Amino acid sequence: MKVSELGEFGLIDLLAEIVNNSPAGQASRQELIVGIGDDAAAWHGDTSTQLVTTDSLTQDVHFSLDIISWKELGWKALAVNLSDIAAMGGVPRYALVSLALPGTTEVEDVTALYRGMIELAQQYEVAIIGGDTSRAPLVSITITVLGNAGNRDKHILTRSAARVGDKIAVTGYPGAAAAGLEMLTNQLQFDPEATTYLRDAFLHPLPRIAEGRLLVGWGVKTAIDISDGLLSDLKHVCKASRVSARVEIDRVPIAAAVRANFGDRAFELALSGGEDYELLFTAGAEVINKVKEATSCPITVIGEITAGKAGEVNLVDINGNPFHLPKGGWEHFR
Amino acid sequence: MKVSELGEFGLIDLLAEIVNNSPAGQASRQELIVGIGDDAAAWHGDTSTQLVTTDSLTQDVHFSLDIISWKELGWKALAVNLSDIAAMGGVPRYALVSLALPGTTEVEDVTALYRGMIELAQQYEVAIIGGDTSRAPLVSITITVLGNAGNRDKHILTRSAARVGDKIAVTGYPGAAAAGLEMLTNQLQFDPEATTYLRDAFLHPLPRIAEGRLLVGWGVKTAIDISDGLLSDLKHVCKASRVSARVEIDRVPIAAAVRANFGDRAFELALSGGEDYELLFTAGAEVINKVKEATSCPITVIGEITAGKAGEVNLVDINGNPFHLPKGGWEHFR
Repeated sequence: MKVSELGEFGLIDLLAEIVNNSPAGQASRQELIVGIGDDAAAWHGDTSTQLVTTDSLTQDVHFSLDIISWKELGWKALAVNLSDIAAMGGVPRYALVSLALPGTTEVEDVTALYRGMIELAQQYEVAIIGGDTSRAPLVSITITVLGNAGNRDKHILTRSAARVGDKIAVTGYPGAAAAGLEMLTNQLQFDPEATTYLRDAFLHPLPRIAEGRLLVGWGVKTAIDISDGLLSDLKHVCKASRVSARVEIDRVPIAAAVRANFGDRAFELALSGGEDYELLFTAGAEVINKVKEATSCPITVIGEITAGKAGEVNLVDINGNPFHLPKGGWEHFR
Repeated sequence: MKVSELGEFGLIDLLAEIVNNSPAGQASRQELIVGIGDDAAAWHGDTSTQLVTTDSLTQDVHFSLDIISWKELGWKALAVNLSDIAAMGGVPRYALVSLALPGTTEVEDVTALYRGMIELAQQYEVAIIGGDTSRAPLVSITITVLGNAGNRDKHILTRSAARVGDKIAVTGYPGAAAAGLEMLTNQLQFDPEATTYLRDAFLHPLPRIAEGRLLVGWGVKTAIDISDGLLSDLKHVCKASRVSARVEIDRVPIAAAVRANFGDRAFELALSGGEDYELLFTAGAEVINKVKEATSCPITVIGEITAGKAGEVNLVDINGNPFHLPKGGWEHFR
């Protein structure tokens, strides 16, 4: 079987199974809290919980230099990793950058890439402490970020702690990044305010570090960052927690710039557009209200965790009737 | 200027300068012991010194699937990272694997890759705890390994601690890996024993973890792993330590299989062939003798650290006369 037939998530499941069934690293694994399959791995450090995550961006697969500048690429390559630390409720501390580049790359483009990374690193007090550079036919950036999550007896945010009856909430406005990508790719012309908003949503995501810390502080136990798309990531939570979910699609918050410029497709972008790096979390209604009061970040309840088939997400309309996907489904929705 | 004109090491120097002159991550950097530019980064953990390193292998740049099997590739991709931890005198604990693959890759090849990694991980008690999979036109593997180096007041092995008068020693037989690569690439026919030895040297390097620990135990402070080639890596030590070195080329240990089958080129392979993953270290003669007595690993003194231009390595023959490189220099020697 080919990797493409198995799919990315099928491959991850298979590799996790091989690794977890092997006896490798038993001694180290005694300290492990979360291994393969969450936003980041976590283990008990000497006195605090340690986190680590890694993510690769490959040219013409994850980004196109026609759309993103080198500086923006640097920012984004780090941001996607900081977002994974945010989704565990941790604080990022150190980053390693593994950079593969064609020899014909301009040195000034590489320094611009680093300036973008450093700009974000500075904002979140992350130190870049190492990495690797090598030659390759296409640009590829793999960043590893280390973080910590407070005292080792404190809990972290995982995908596997959702309980039936929990409300499902999201930060910000999912779909804005996908709308931004579409605007940039198809050179769509919107008013200046919408253009800036959508451009930033795609090129300058702000990892929700403070919000992740706030969630931990209020006792939330389940979160994921919306990098694959709201529904896809909610499915990951439901699968890991062995529960179902019901999403009231009319509650899904959609940015004005997306609603105004993408018409009927606004829903699709909000539900299945990727790369938002917002947080999706689940908790009791009361806890979510406390979190809302404590932050200026928009937080919206969009549904509820339900008993049912593990990993199933059901969409309902404003009257509680099942919402059916457009014929043929959406491109990213699988 | 193009990246190829600046060269890999020039690029690393430039990026290190940009990062170190930026205010990003000052708080985290207070705990930092070693940042960009050594085999691994090191920082003070809560009670112990933490290490992290990352290395990428890209298809047709670092490896060819005509020569290396998927299982061997898995072994090697992890081994090169464990070797960096060894060169800091640490113990590897956790690994993250970022894998980029064409969709047409056979799933069974990916599982073979993981089996190779797991085989080595098991031998060194390393737990694979996470990573990332994505699509790309060529196979590329970036592994990050976390380790620790004992109590936070204990020293580690760096590139920058060589002192004038230190002897320079190497473990094992440098050049065997490069000889193995040449044998495999050109399908050279040697006797079975030499074939196995050279094949293993290139495809199944054994990271010198125990030896690195031993060096720390005996008070050695300077080490590097020979991944770029003996002379090239010795230059890195000399540059970081602001000293020169004199290498007596007749003392450089050359494996019998290399000497017998590569004639005059054996020297070239030993001095400038890469990917050996042996350790080069410097210390007083007495300390080196103690280390030798304590291990079955071959350890050979090949020269001495001298006062002089930072980063300069001088070669001398058996009579102490300057040894001149063949006209035009060696391919890897720069």
